[in-house]
Amino acid sequence: MELSKRQEQIIGIVKQDGPITGENIAEQLGLTRATLRPDLAILTMAGFLDARPRVGYFYTGKTGSELLTEKISKFKVHEYQSVPIVVKEDASVYDAISTMFLEDVGTLFVVGEHACLTGVLSRKDLLRASIGTQDLNAVPVHIIMTRMPNITVCRKEDLLLDVASKLITKQIDGIPVVKDTDLGLEVVGRITKTTITKVFVELITDNHI
Amino acid sequence: MELSKRQEQIIGIVKQDGPITGENIAEQLGLTRATLRPDLAILTMAGFLDARPRVGYFYTGKTGSELLTEKISKFKVHEYQSVPIVVKEDASVYDAISTMFLEDVGTLFVVGEHACLTGVLSRKDLLRASIGTQDLNAVPVHIIMTRMPNITVCRKEDLLLDVASKLITKQIDGIPVVKDTDLGLEVVGRITKTTITKVFVELITDNHI
Repeated sequence: MELSKRQEQIIGIVKQDGPITGENIAEQLGLTRATLRPDLAILTMAGFLDARPRVGYFYTGKTGSELLTEKISKFKVHEYQSVPIVVKEDASVYDAISTMFLEDVGTLFVVGEHACLTGVLSRKDLLRASIGTQDLNAVPVHIIMTRMPNITVCRKEDLLLDVASKLITKQIDGIPVVKDTDLGLEVVGRITKTTITKVFVELITDNHI
Repeated sequence: MELSKRQEQIIGIVKQDGPITGENIAEQLGLTRATLRPDLAILTMAGFLDARPRVGYFYTGKTGSELLTEKISKFKVHEYQSVPIVVKEDASVYDAISTMFLEDVGTLFVVGEHACLTGVLSRKDLLRASIGTQDLNAVPVHIIMTRMPNITVCRKEDLLLDVASKLITKQIDGIPVVKDTDLGLEVVGRITKTTITKVFVELITDNHI
């Protein structure tokens, strides 16, 4: 966002004299409180200023680039997760490969009893199985999947940045978003390197704060 | 970056009176030109101010968040590309799968005569081949690869943002970085969704401008 001259002036005043009331800012600028209201609202929403009741406005001390990265670092998983594709433990490797192509995903999640997460299948897991196995219809996925507790999971309130960081450090393509239930972990979403690449492109293209 | 009080003052002066010489800024602040030199250098490098010989400093009119996204949108491919893994056209599908596991990559590039790019192999290409083929040693990769001209390529001076955008729109995991030669396209690097995810994490974690 580009600040107007008046908004820059307001920041200057609050930086120098804050905490300061809206009334007093208006006085210094020779304007009415009502005239200033939209500018103060914008500056507060954008994070340049903060306001406390009965105290007034104060400067947060942050530059635009810090505010942007701070904002991005607060993105939550549930705002960006996509739909998870699951297969059952007793599905065959052949069925899992077919599902992967049909659904056009790179990672499948495996569920057992009560539809709870028990494993993960990557393209490489399926590729490894398919070159080592004669009859892919005869092998159930639970034989070849990566299983709990060796699975990295995340929850919808987790930070997207932390999940992106795990994709890199754990060298995996996708992480299931799970919900804790009495019976185990229910799979409710997925975050993948595609998710993060999309967020990157949209952020820079939209140039939004 | 967080601006110092003096740097904020300089921006204020340039905003009001620019274009203005360093000499004149120093005068207004009651400081010497030498004292101001480091601050002016920082503000110019960070993009807040611009300088023209015999004219002076002027304000670029950009907020920190615009400068950050503007900076990111200028990242070049060659600053972030990783090493490409290539196989020859007559390598068997089995060899290609082995190479993919050994090198721990998700995309292989295929080269023909003169070591020039002729095709790309994704994990899904290899998975599709491996379930449909009895003897993976007997099938050369040129039978199953995606081939030129259906391959998306990029060059080292291209913008990382544009390549990230292509990864999404073309629904692919990796794009070869190529160099034009008299004999064809030489493969010199790769950009993948992993590259972009890493850049995203580092940007937000380092909070650099």
